[in-house]
Amino acid sequence: MLEDKNPIRTPLSELGEFKLIEHLTEHLKITQKSTILGVGDDAAVLNYENKNAVVSTDLLVEGVHFDLSYMPLKHLGYKAIVVNLSDIYAMNAMPSQVTVSIAVSNRFPVEALEELYQGINKAAELYGIDVVGGDTTSSTSGLIISVTALGAVEKHKEVRRSGAKANDLLVITGDIGGAYMGLQVLEREKEVFKVNPNNQPDLSMYSYIIERQLKPEARKDIVKLLEALGVRPTSMIDISDGLSSEVLHLCKQSGVGVDLYEDKIPLDPQVISTCEEFNIDSTTIALNGGEDYELLMTVSQEDYPKIKGNPNLTVIGYMTEKEKGKHLVTRAEERIPIIAKGWNALNNLT
Amino acid sequence: MLEDKNPIRTPLSELGEFKLIEHLTEHLKITQKSTILGVGDDAAVLNYENKNAVVSTDLLVEGVHFDLSYMPLKHLGYKAIVVNLSDIYAMNAMPSQVTVSIAVSNRFPVEALEELYQGINKAAELYGIDVVGGDTTSSTSGLIISVTALGAVEKHKEVRRSGAKANDLLVITGDIGGAYMGLQVLEREKEVFKVNPNNQPDLSMYSYIIERQLKPEARKDIVKLLEALGVRPTSMIDISDGLSSEVLHLCKQSGVGVDLYEDKIPLDPQVISTCEEFNIDSTTIALNGGEDYELLMTVSQEDYPKIKGNPNLTVIGYMTEKEKGKHLVTRAEERIPIIAKGWNALNNLT
Repeated sequence: MLEDKNPIRTPLSELGEFKLIEHLTEHLKITQKSTILGVGDDAAVLNYENKNAVVSTDLLVEGVHFDLSYMPLKHLGYKAIVVNLSDIYAMNAMPSQVTVSIAVSNRFPVEALEELYQGINKAAELYGIDVVGGDTTSSTSGLIISVTALGAVEKHKEVRRSGAKANDLLVITGDIGGAYMGLQVLEREKEVFKVNPNNQPDLSMYSYIIERQLKPEARKDIVKLLEALGVRPTSMIDISDGLSSEVLHLCKQSGVGVDLYEDKIPLDPQVISTCEEFNIDSTTIALNGGEDYELLMTVSQEDYPKIKGNPNLTVIGYMTEKEKGKHLVTRAEERIPIIAKGWNALNNLT
Repeated sequence: MLEDKNPIRTPLSELGEFKLIEHLTEHLKITQKSTILGVGDDAAVLNYENKNAVVSTDLLVEGVHFDLSYMPLKHLGYKAIVVNLSDIYAMNAMPSQVTVSIAVSNRFPVEALEELYQGINKAAELYGIDVVGGDTTSSTSGLIISVTALGAVEKHKEVRRSGAKANDLLVITGDIGGAYMGLQVLEREKEVFKVNPNNQPDLSMYSYIIERQLKPEARKDIVKLLEALGVRPTSMIDISDGLSSEVLHLCKQSGVGVDLYEDKIPLDPQVISTCEEFNIDSTTIALNGGEDYELLMTVSQEDYPKIKGNPNLTVIGYMTEKEKGKHLVTRAEERIPIIAKGWNALNNLT
């Protein structure tokens, strides 16, 4: 998985900045009614009618957020879009446009950027958004991707981090910990590869968790599901830095406490078995792993009948008065204070 | 100018990502009616009422777009905002929000980022915009700044690059070439400094052009002026990469040709004298210099009486039928084809 399979290498300088942008964006299609003018002018023009606009931005840096030795460029492009869309869904909004800026060193040929854009375009297509702008420039070292996602939400319908109330249910979508354990497997295989480059590992038993790491999906379906169920969460956040970190954000910004039940945290069997293989506690991974891009929300108790039994939504605790603090209730019924140990990009400073 | 005057250095890792973002954004004020929700959630929420939204983005990379040995961080922060606002004005729109993402290596202490944010906040204050989001992360090498600017324009009032017609007047704001010549002076002083660090150069005779390079302004006033004059340009672009490059963009996207008169190009006396000192042709600098952030537009002939004699607007040529080509008409009345030699970030690839 780590070899360079691409024999054609066109130097970036051969095209120049304008031609490169033109080349990379020539296949972009405008599919959204809200896109009045896309790539190719000083700015894009968008029309959100009588809705509010929603905007979020992220910066992905090689060597900090991704490792190209096991992250295919196509997947990286896809992931760069998806992680930004996740922030828009977390507002209970629907994304409709992104801008994508890329800085690259000359070790990347044009073909590498084409591959990156294939992933970007694939995500745009699947999530129904338009790429409406961006910038391509050189970097003195690695690859840097900056994505800004834009979307719309009906007035007063956005769901913030600050609306949780005591007694609200704490609800999570999907399962968590997979992306982090996928990363552990990939890191291990990278070390094996360094020793024996001819080794072709069988990673099929880790397929789910590796996909969670390399090609995560954002929960577009949840925004639609909540609408269909008639449930408006009181607060919501996406899980990018780990469950404990996100729970603490909701608590802090809403001024509430929480009781989170260890035995309720949804884990995929592959996460559990891989945690056993690596001899790591799966709850620690679920709390601190990050990059799962599931949604964490609080829901009023009276909405419980509407979400009960839904396979996409798991109640993992409830919010309390602020004074009661923020606790994990363990399987042994111990109450342990929740501390954010989520992945922190600034701790990786070189 | 090149010494480190800052004795206090708090390592970034001491704060961590969330605390750092909190620290840098705690003084941000929301001043715009269109900002419903600013920094601190998964996304910002904006309300452009019945106007269209406009969005533009730029990526600034240390060693490619700026050199911190003579660019104070405060000015850099200011410039990073201004260059993005310029794109919004170039659409005939008014900016109202920006998001700012920063990647830094650990050679930057917290105090350096505070200085950068001082410049960002100063620009936000002066241009009347809100900083509504962003991301702060680590980089493996230098400083990277990604800014996305958002604004609004009344429906159908945006001015694109594609609307120029044959016989339209080509009009430029302010004067050009200053930013590039300011850079030449700064680069020369950097070399002098390397040889003799005690040398304190007197740069007062270059004050205008150095300010054009280090602390450029975007032409907010022009959008208002055009409205007051009742002039809607047929096309418009901001001059970031050099006059020749921008003229060619207008020609290409509008499907027209141009006659641009060398003797009409507005140059500041400091640009002319510095060009003489450096023994460079000032027209070459005006055509290819870049970073002036003036606006270049085309105006219908019938609007000429409205702009005639306005000190902010200079007619430098007129658009022609496409077949007639794109020419510079020299002082000697020679017609020379215009070729883009503008500054191209990808030619600087290391």
